[in-house]
Amino acid sequence: MISDKMKKLVNNNSVIRQMFEEGKKLASIYGKENVYDFSLGNPSVPAPKEVNEAIKNIVDSEESISLHGYMSNSGYEDVREAIANSINQKFNTDFDENNIIMTVGAASGMNIVLKSILNPNEEVIVFAPYFVEYKNYVNNYDGKIVEVLCKESDFQPDLEEFEQKINKNTRAVIINSPNNPTGVVYSESTLKAISEILEKKQKELNITIFLISDEPYRELVYDDIEVPYVTKFYNNTFVVYSYSKSLSLPGERIGYVVVPNEMEDSKTVFEAVTIANRVLGSVNAPSIMQKVIKKCVNLKTDITEYKENRDLLYNELKKLNFECIYPQGAFYLFVKTPIDDKEFCEIAKKYNILVVPGSSFAGSGYVRISYCVSNEMIKRSLPAFRKLAEELFNKNFI
Amino acid sequence: MISDKMKKLVNNNSVIRQMFEEGKKLASIYGKENVYDFSLGNPSVPAPKEVNEAIKNIVDSEESISLHGYMSNSGYEDVREAIANSINQKFNTDFDENNIIMTVGAASGMNIVLKSILNPNEEVIVFAPYFVEYKNYVNNYDGKIVEVLCKESDFQPDLEEFEQKINKNTRAVIINSPNNPTGVVYSESTLKAISEILEKKQKELNITIFLISDEPYRELVYDDIEVPYVTKFYNNTFVVYSYSKSLSLPGERIGYVVVPNEMEDSKTVFEAVTIANRVLGSVNAPSIMQKVIKKCVNLKTDITEYKENRDLLYNELKKLNFECIYPQGAFYLFVKTPIDDKEFCEIAKKYNILVVPGSSFAGSGYVRISYCVSNEMIKRSLPAFRKLAEELFNKNFI
Repeated sequence: MISDKMKKLVNNNSVIRQMFEEGKKLASIYGKENVYDFSLGNPSVPAPKEVNEAIKNIVDSEESISLHGYMSNSGYEDVREAIANSINQKFNTDFDENNIIMTVGAASGMNIVLKSILNPNEEVIVFAPYFVEYKNYVNNYDGKIVEVLCKESDFQPDLEEFEQKINKNTRAVIINSPNNPTGVVYSESTLKAISEILEKKQKELNITIFLISDEPYRELVYDDIEVPYVTKFYNNTFVVYSYSKSLSLPGERIGYVVVPNEMEDSKTVFEAVTIANRVLGSVNAPSIMQKVIKKCVNLKTDITEYKENRDLLYNELKKLNFECIYPQGAFYLFVKTPIDDKEFCEIAKKYNILVVPGSSFAGSGYVRISYCVSNEMIKRSLPAFRKLAEELFNKNFI
Repeated sequence: MISDKMKKLVNNNSVIRQMFEEGKKLASIYGKENVYDFSLGNPSVPAPKEVNEAIKNIVDSEESISLHGYMSNSGYEDVREAIANSINQKFNTDFDENNIIMTVGAASGMNIVLKSILNPNEEVIVFAPYFVEYKNYVNNYDGKIVEVLCKESDFQPDLEEFEQKINKNTRAVIINSPNNPTGVVYSESTLKAISEILEKKQKELNITIFLISDEPYRELVYDDIEVPYVTKFYNNTFVVYSYSKSLSLPGERIGYVVVPNEMEDSKTVFEAVTIANRVLGSVNAPSIMQKVIKKCVNLKTDITEYKENRDLLYNELKKLNFECIYPQGAFYLFVKTPIDDKEFCEIAKKYNILVVPGSSFAGSGYVRISYCVSNEMIKRSLPAFRKLAEELFNKNFI
């Protein structure tokens, strides 16, 4: 009944769905408070209170027809201008409203960018492990995902392999820093190195390669780590941003795409992305949320709890013999598994711990643990992790 | 720089954009109040006041994390249940939350349905004139649009031509009643006839053909005209609905898709549409607007002004010799042009009247006049229409 492309997706989906169902089943048997669900990337910290104040204020002060009405497919000009100014202030860039397209979150932003640039069979390089949905997004436009492994020592891209895999068919490279699922942040030197390779290959092969920087976790960094602004290093860069994590608004679907003037044929690309926003069905980003962003453009959610969670869980897992990179951003720990990662997840379930196998991120041999949960749940889960470690390492931890 | 598919869209777009620019130019020369812009389908009647009250109430009463957080990709269960109940009450159907997928408006609903069912080169039949975007939506999934003309006498589908054009490659039929651009509503007998032809052809060719009923104008009907519920006549029917016009919320992007149990393989199709919602980038419909719909599920915008506009403009244009079907729904008049429709639009511009050529809807020889404008603007525009008629028909009207 359904299309061939969707058949594959429906089949794959059932694996993930099984896990959800399992979680529900465990909760119904053992009680919700005795199940430790670390599988989701849903913010556990509320939106800043200014967000709800802005909503009420906007509803009270703006005329209904213009507040809830259509605007340009790229979004309200004043909202885009406010965002451009905010980026300029933070990163010393030079954007204006004609560089910003408001989108239905980053997922939609990724889709309209890929639709705008990708011809069938063109290649998009990703650094593995990576967010599984990239494969689906690229497949929407009949592109081909090419995986370049990160080095296991620090989960930074393997630049030699990267350079080798660029060829005439390479159309784009997706980076995601702070990273889902590893929590790693790409340093300025990594970004410069990627950019230099891209510049060199563009000239050598006489092609255009776009860098797509997917940045939903930009504001979720700890200990004064800096996340450099990628357009500074490479002209053909799209920035895809979302307020899902930075303002804890994932359900509202609000984000934007940056198309810098320095990009080749920038104006045409901007127009293409805007049209893609329309014809793929978003038409425009939700109007009330656009207005909210204008009022909250320099705010971010309080990440104190995430940082506490990271440190608590990281330290406890290290004590229990687990190996893991100390994450600088996002809200994930990517933990090495002493056994097959799917098997690990099955055994963890015995202790009512739910985590996602790394193989779902093209990173087998690891599991992703989302620490965007209550600090209190992490504390409650520690005895369960201890028992899991005792079984896995065949050793007592006290 | 951009993909081949997008190149065509960018080129076509500039024609429409030129019209917008022209409108702005005219307004700057003659003053906004002296330009009569009938080109857009943007509601001119505000949302019911209960919408804004609901927004404030929700913000005050719901917890931020769950209000603005992720939910199932098909939407909140309670919202879907409320919508199912509301449809059941009105149309004596038997839906529940497992038949409803919340979407980012009807445009996104159309996209995720088409993505779910369409393989490359499969055909989708539309009845011309039709909403231009259907072609783009079908093209997103490499399908082929097949146009079947409506009869000029009443703009109901030509059923003989329809039957002839169904073949092994036919995958879906899109209907849109009340119709953009003609304002026509399909009667029960028309819908039954379409359904019977589809049933017959499904058996004859041993294929499945989906009927997609795009219904953003369902609530905009006048004089107690009924808009029959299409799932009653044909099992393989998707209903694609939007609150853009019914609650005057086009910028907020909120709607839903109905997948009835009677559809072949209904559960798999539901799952496919839900996954398509995710991978095409919507992820889910905006969460706050979903909650608003639950509270306003049986409301609709006040259409008194649209009805007054229709009657005023229709009667005046008839007096001026123009030929036009009396529309039963939506907010468009589809007026026959005594000359080429694009030429008509050019001449109309001389009188500061902006309308859209029918050829943009595969209906050349006509223009679309959107009467979702203020009643007062219509009154102001009448002398301009008179001058236009005098030039076109070479005759004096007093």
